[in-house]
Amino acid sequence: MLRVVILGTGNVATHLFAAFSQLDTVAVVQVVGRSENALKKFSSSTAVSQNFNCIAEAEVYVIAVADDAIPQVSSYLSHKKDIVVHTSGAMPMDCLAPENRGVFYPLQTFTAGKPVDFTSIPIGIEAKKQSSLTVLRQLAEALSQTVYEIDSKQRKTLHLAAVFVNNFTNHLYHIGEMLCQQEGVSFELLRPLILETAQKVQSLSPAEAQTGPARRGDQNSMQAHRTLLSNKAHAELYTLFSKAIQHHYAKKL
Amino acid sequence: MLRVVILGTGNVATHLFAAFSQLDTVAVVQVVGRSENALKKFSSSTAVSQNFNCIAEAEVYVIAVADDAIPQVSSYLSHKKDIVVHTSGAMPMDCLAPENRGVFYPLQTFTAGKPVDFTSIPIGIEAKKQSSLTVLRQLAEALSQTVYEIDSKQRKTLHLAAVFVNNFTNHLYHIGEMLCQQEGVSFELLRPLILETAQKVQSLSPAEAQTGPARRGDQNSMQAHRTLLSNKAHAELYTLFSKAIQHHYAKKL
Repeated sequence: MLRVVILGTGNVATHLFAAFSQLDTVAVVQVVGRSENALKKFSSSTAVSQNFNCIAEAEVYVIAVADDAIPQVSSYLSHKKDIVVHTSGAMPMDCLAPENRGVFYPLQTFTAGKPVDFTSIPIGIEAKKQSSLTVLRQLAEALSQTVYEIDSKQRKTLHLAAVFVNNFTNHLYHIGEMLCQQEGVSFELLRPLILETAQKVQSLSPAEAQTGPARRGDQNSMQAHRTLLSNKAHAELYTLFSKAIQHHYAKKL
Repeated sequence: MLRVVILGTGNVATHLFAAFSQLDTVAVVQVVGRSENALKKFSSSTAVSQNFNCIAEAEVYVIAVADDAIPQVSSYLSHKKDIVVHTSGAMPMDCLAPENRGVFYPLQTFTAGKPVDFTSIPIGIEAKKQSSLTVLRQLAEALSQTVYEIDSKQRKTLHLAAVFVNNFTNHLYHIGEMLCQQEGVSFELLRPLILETAQKVQSLSPAEAQTGPARRGDQNSMQAHRTLLSNKAHAELYTLFSKAIQHHYAKKL
């Protein structure tokens, strides 16, 4: 049985707690957080504490707090011998104070109240000590089918890539929604296309899956589209994307 | 039994033929196309013809050819009394020569060789004659659960919106892939996030689903990301998206 302490009570902490709690091989022995109110949702299932100077003994300490709070929270664990990890994509492993440190990074977008299936969530792990990496791998593989060892530099780039494929993609969906609203068309019409576009690259490479006027070099369609775009930011994005796609595939001819 | 003639042998024609062929209420009585070779895949199931002056009688004529060929192909059907439709998002209904004209626009990305489930594909219909609209609705509802009446102007905007949520989104996936390659990280790590991002907006509005550094106004993360982007086009997109997202949500505060 792997004993885990979770520090933090936000989205990632809540989802990890729920996932760990379903495993026979893992026991969350304590959740530590500042907010008495936020701790309530954990207190029926495990020990909770508001006191960071009073942290239970465990094999893995998981810090799941906002990026800028990670160094400070980790300082309360400086004396611990067992591994202390954070769950952030953007922060280097070395922002942690304890000597035995590492990272446990689930690459997914967590929404409050929406349960996630951890088996399909990739987890990136990193550890300073080889023996701790083995423990982290054990913990990660208990949750997920996809566990990769990645270092802090790779994780930083991966986090940036996630901003492109998640945050920026969602903004494109939002633009689609605004265009629909503007013409009195239901966004419902775009939803299946959005899903199919994402499903396509589950097996294909995005480079192979690219279609559309810019991919075909269809200048007439692109010109017609530009005249429809009254919003300056949308027009700028249209031009930038079309240029980038044409440039990329022209090179391949 | 609704008799249909399909003009064209490309992706849309092939997928529509396969879908219509599965229906008890629809009979594809002929496929007409220029290429003898392309017609071969239809000839075991229905009549085929290379002669556009020799088109069978039907209740619906479906022109599924490249946009710029639609007017010319439709001129061969000028004498027909029954409805002639095209399947294009970008072309107005009035590019068709016949008096009894309309549009039958399935909003999806079709990949050669990949079967699609038409029940979940929205179909936009438009017709000049009310009685023909009824026929188109019957045909569309035989295929799909989602049928909307949309005019040529709405369809044009919808087609543009589809470029944003499909073609441009796919390019963002491609940028994600390039960033992974650059750091020697598997694109496999991003695939579940891509799918979840698309699944999220199947029930939520994209405006509600927006997350990330720009949404939070997290200047430190954005600055850190920008220093990682050596590719100028990627850096430009990063800045433009971040500005647009910040601008949009700042207004809402």
